[in-house]
Amino acid sequence: MKGLKEYAEIVNARLRTVFPALAENSFVEGEMPELLVRSMNYSLLAGGKRLRPSMLLAAVDMLDGDVDFALDFACAVEMIHSYSLIHDDLPGMDDDTMRRGRPTNHVVFGVGQAILAGDGLLNAAFELMLRRALEKPELAQRSLRAIYEIATGAGVTGMIAGQVLDLYCEHNAVMDDHALSFIHRDKTACMFIYPLRAAGALAGATQAQIDALGRYGENFGRIFQATDDLLDVVGDAAEMGKTLGKDAEQGKLTVVSLHGVEGARAQVRMLLERAMTELDIFGAEAQFFRDLIASMVDRTK
Amino acid sequence: MKGLKEYAEIVNARLRTVFPALAENSFVEGEMPELLVRSMNYSLLAGGKRLRPSMLLAAVDMLDGDVDFALDFACAVEMIHSYSLIHDDLPGMDDDTMRRGRPTNHVVFGVGQAILAGDGLLNAAFELMLRRALEKPELAQRSLRAIYEIATGAGVTGMIAGQVLDLYCEHNAVMDDHALSFIHRDKTACMFIYPLRAAGALAGATQAQIDALGRYGENFGRIFQATDDLLDVVGDAAEMGKTLGKDAEQGKLTVVSLHGVEGARAQVRMLLERAMTELDIFGAEAQFFRDLIASMVDRTK
Repeated sequence: MKGLKEYAEIVNARLRTVFPALAENSFVEGEMPELLVRSMNYSLLAGGKRLRPSMLLAAVDMLDGDVDFALDFACAVEMIHSYSLIHDDLPGMDDDTMRRGRPTNHVVFGVGQAILAGDGLLNAAFELMLRRALEKPELAQRSLRAIYEIATGAGVTGMIAGQVLDLYCEHNAVMDDHALSFIHRDKTACMFIYPLRAAGALAGATQAQIDALGRYGENFGRIFQATDDLLDVVGDAAEMGKTLGKDAEQGKLTVVSLHGVEGARAQVRMLLERAMTELDIFGAEAQFFRDLIASMVDRTK
Repeated sequence: MKGLKEYAEIVNARLRTVFPALAENSFVEGEMPELLVRSMNYSLLAGGKRLRPSMLLAAVDMLDGDVDFALDFACAVEMIHSYSLIHDDLPGMDDDTMRRGRPTNHVVFGVGQAILAGDGLLNAAFELMLRRALEKPELAQRSLRAIYEIATGAGVTGMIAGQVLDLYCEHNAVMDDHALSFIHRDKTACMFIYPLRAAGALAGATQAQIDALGRYGENFGRIFQATDDLLDVVGDAAEMGKTLGKDAEQGKLTVVSLHGVEGARAQVRMLLERAMTELDIFGAEAQFFRDLIASMVDRTK
């Protein structure tokens, strides 16, 4: 087993080659337009911890699966994550002009091209997984199952469902625990739950192992979101005056705005305990996932 | 073999059940939000000839494949077509407020929700195909191949590539034959080429048959677009003053604006001959596809 940074580097190396380098303004029938490649890569290669794909690879590795075969599935997860950020930032959605210190996709390429870059990344994620799957007919059933898990996490009962409620709550000033739990699960946790389940499917894990990975993913995702909300108020960023409780000030629906700092910390402790319990089935092999979730919680101490 | 209307009715019946009926404003974790279902169904069930999915089913039928198994793949093609129209109509893209006599999706549901409805339909198309594929492990390899073909047609070397160039040409007033051919193939024909290739894959056709279906699809798609452009100038709609050469007047890039009515008619004749030749390999069984393309050409007489 490798560390988070090593898995992330494997993912980064592959992501850099997913879309070909093309001559400027090249438009050729049946090939990707250079403008599309450039706008997709602008967001896809903008950095980030590559947490979701790295966790997928680590889970495959933990289960003695084929990490090399799993790589394109992991990259597809990151491509889906990237598309969701491009569309989230659009006018009509969050209308953000900056992300990771750079202008957002639609600021650089225009709204129409940003919509298409997002559509392209989502579709290309499936193209990438399907192409890889076709190379190993003996793994067809496992591949189908893995792609289905990832599609479910990204889809209309998963991430997109969460985005719909998030948008609805923002427009209708809904602030309650039911909506918050829904958004944290569907919008944030689903892209941990289902990629981890996909890892299980790829590695030929038992159903019990797949379900445990999914439940770990749900608790991890909720901690990821809660600690993010906490950091906004108590973290380095807040102390440095960079965001200083920006979300809380704007009356955004977060675990801190609903339950306060101590309430949020208590939730994180409960979720941490649950997540750790789910790892028991994997024994000592799961140390990567124990360390990872501990480091996530440590961010807010 | 059935007729176009019968295949379309089979598709319509299934499409009506793809998304569940839900209580108004229901948001439940891990389920589709009612608002998402309503916005997706608003466009998906807005009518239309269901040409692409019907042709997929007819091709499976022609090749003695399993039409019932192919149905969800056909519906997925229509869901992808529907998503592309929602996103095409958005401000930043074509900015259209009416389609098929009704307000466009974003006019009714808002821009943010329309973006998510489109994303939802694209993702749900894959969810639908993958779920069906998992039900028949013995057809896993054929299913993977079919989903891959459809993803390719919809994707970054297919439909999305065409949309990127279409948007680029509109913004930069590009009017040339190279761009026109590219847009007609990628934006329009790819969603005939690849669903037909998928039909071949599902039915276990030979590579020669799959390739012939694809080439028929390309010529069909180009005729579909060229006759659409012609109808805009010479058809009933134009005569009734409804659109009266609207595209041509706006200086839009069409086969008529580049080559005139007679030039467009000549192109259609050439494409028709090519399309018919591709059907030879299927013999008398291909009568559905001969009739279909003839009726398409007849629209402009």
